Amino acid sequence: MSTPAVLTQTAVETIAWTPEGVVMIDQTRLPNETSFVTCRTHTEVAEAIRKMVIRGAPAIGVAAAMGVALGAQKSQNLEADMPVICETLAKTRPTAVNLFWAIDRMRGVYEANKHLGPDAVRARLIEEAQHIREEDIAINEAIGRNGAPLVPDGKTVLTHCNAGALATAGYGTALGVIRAAVEMGKKIDVFADETRPFLQGARLTAWELQRDGIETTLITDNMAGHFLKSGRIGCVVVGADRIAANGDVANKVGTYSVAVLAKENGVPFYVAAPISTLDLSLESGDEIPIEERAGKEVTHMRGVAVAPEGIKVANPAFDVTPNRYVTAIITERGVARAPYTESLRKLAG
Amino acid sequence: MSTPAVLTQTAVETIAWTPEGVVMIDQTRLPNETSFVTCRTHTEVAEAIRKMVIRGAPAIGVAAAMGVALGAQKSQNLEADMPVICETLAKTRPTAVNLFWAIDRMRGVYEANKHLGPDAVRARLIEEAQHIREEDIAINEAIGRNGAPLVPDGKTVLTHCNAGALATAGYGTALGVIRAAVEMGKKIDVFADETRPFLQGARLTAWELQRDGIETTLITDNMAGHFLKSGRIGCVVVGADRIAANGDVANKVGTYSVAVLAKENGVPFYVAAPISTLDLSLESGDEIPIEERAGKEVTHMRGVAVAPEGIKVANPAFDVTPNRYVTAIITERGVARAPYTESLRKLAG
Repeated sequence: MSTPAVLTQTAVETIAWTPEGVVMIDQTRLPNETSFVTCRTHTEVAEAIRKMVIRGAPAIGVAAAMGVALGAQKSQNLEADMPVICETLAKTRPTAVNLFWAIDRMRGVYEANKHLGPDAVRARLIEEAQHIREEDIAINEAIGRNGAPLVPDGKTVLTHCNAGALATAGYGTALGVIRAAVEMGKKIDVFADETRPFLQGARLTAWELQRDGIETTLITDNMAGHFLKSGRIGCVVVGADRIAANGDVANKVGTYSVAVLAKENGVPFYVAAPISTLDLSLESGDEIPIEERAGKEVTHMRGVAVAPEGIKVANPAFDVTPNRYVTAIITERGVARAPYTESLRKLAG
Repeated sequence: MSTPAVLTQTAVETIAWTPEGVVMIDQTRLPNETSFVTCRTHTEVAEAIRKMVIRGAPAIGVAAAMGVALGAQKSQNLEADMPVICETLAKTRPTAVNLFWAIDRMRGVYEANKHLGPDAVRARLIEEAQHIREEDIAINEAIGRNGAPLVPDGKTVLTHCNAGALATAGYGTALGVIRAAVEMGKKIDVFADETRPFLQGARLTAWELQRDGIETTLITDNMAGHFLKSGRIGCVVVGADRIAANGDVANKVGTYSVAVLAKENGVPFYVAAPISTLDLSLESGDEIPIEERAGKEVTHMRGVAVAPEGIKVANPAFDVTPNRYVTAIITERGVARAPYTESLRKLAG
């Protein structure tokens, strides 16, 4: 994973399966530097997920699937190694359910095909990981098609964090909805919350949308309320890391605040996510584990201290938005509205 | 103003009148470096206010008063120079009304004493500026006494930006309330919003409270909602830059969001400010001018780019919290509650 750039290309891909290993754009270095890392083992993939070289629930799912495939490819004893490989990848980050969904799916493929012998099952796992990646792009395009009609024409869309091409295999969930709205001719612009502490909005969303030529204004997170009150925001669209059966949404910390402020100002609040982000095993969002990350993400910016030494820090990476603030959940299979317990179960099939 | 540290002391003072000029702690360099700048002319004071070497509504008022005194001290033609000196200082920042209040007060002292001749009026102006500084500390202590009983014992106080000793001549408004609550024996701790883009919370509030031994946890602005929902926050206390006759409050951008989130979660939201922050000439907060600052404050952190080059930025430095979100306004003359049009007029006398 410490490998420097091995691949440069015009159309930036989030993640790709290559003969050298799993290649990812290094999201910790954007936008100052466009570089790629190559993970040659499943432990390198796990490290890349943990360090947020790759992040975003759907992208983490694809990375985990490719990590399992990579582990299987290198394994001389699949029966013994598969549980270890899956466990290593599952332990990287706790909140995004797509990680566990992808690992489960790969485990299922292994179980269904292990009777074919190691070479065949390895080939099948590599094929499945690549399929999950391609499928994710198609899913995002469908989310975009389903969500675009909901975006008010002639107004500004507010988004938080990065639920874009970089958070997925491509196109994006929330940014997919924005891209599809632009493609259908709507005259919209975007306000992007910078999204402290990791600055996914400033570093990734602003970068993606600037490349696409979609007019984007960067704001700090604490300005979102001011602009929601101003009347210029037509809707909010965000992604999700896990959605409980009742429609409570875990997403990047700050999402809850934006949702409350949207509701207070009569602005629709949309969540765009694939069906794989649903966790119908959880009755409500209270049960979703919230990752606590290192305090240094808050006290330091690009290595420079911005707070007094020794200060205590809280750094929950996610928060939970109760379903009453969610206007609709946009999936590849359609748009769910309250009551979510029924609408989500129906979409999940 | 470019002068390096000329004064170091154990008890850090925000601003002091010295024989060499007006000495300020450089708030752009805290907490990494405790250095002081000496302003030798009123234009250097104006530049220090504009660059936020000194910031916080009451501190800006003191600085402006000292700036007028400094200008008068150096002037050979007071009658001609006084309007220019006052205008230069008034043009530095538009939102905090304490700036205009202090300049008006100094202008009044000049008018009332000019018949005594230039030497006497200069002495009187210098005396008045020092008096405004001392008065501000006493006012903050009174705000603390009035506010401390409102702080719930055994819980966490959330604050936004820095309304501390550094935002005033000493002790602080919001942090004055917190200090007084601690002094009266309440077991509280503080959550400090980092307050992007200028990081007054991370750099100044965390530093001040750490020096005082008050347990403080630093969070990013977008985490405030999550913790307000959690039940651990007993109340919010913030300062103010200008309060309209109806109780609408202009304060550091993000205050509005915190107020809405506090109300949504049943947490009292208190504003602590001196009477000089009232602007009864404005019917509502809609009339308060909101300063727009340079985009670079958002796109760069300590000189390092954190956003793609050329991205558009919005950077309103303040927002307006409508009175319906304000539980009470704590002043040196007592605590005002809704309806504010009556209660504030009564306190203002």
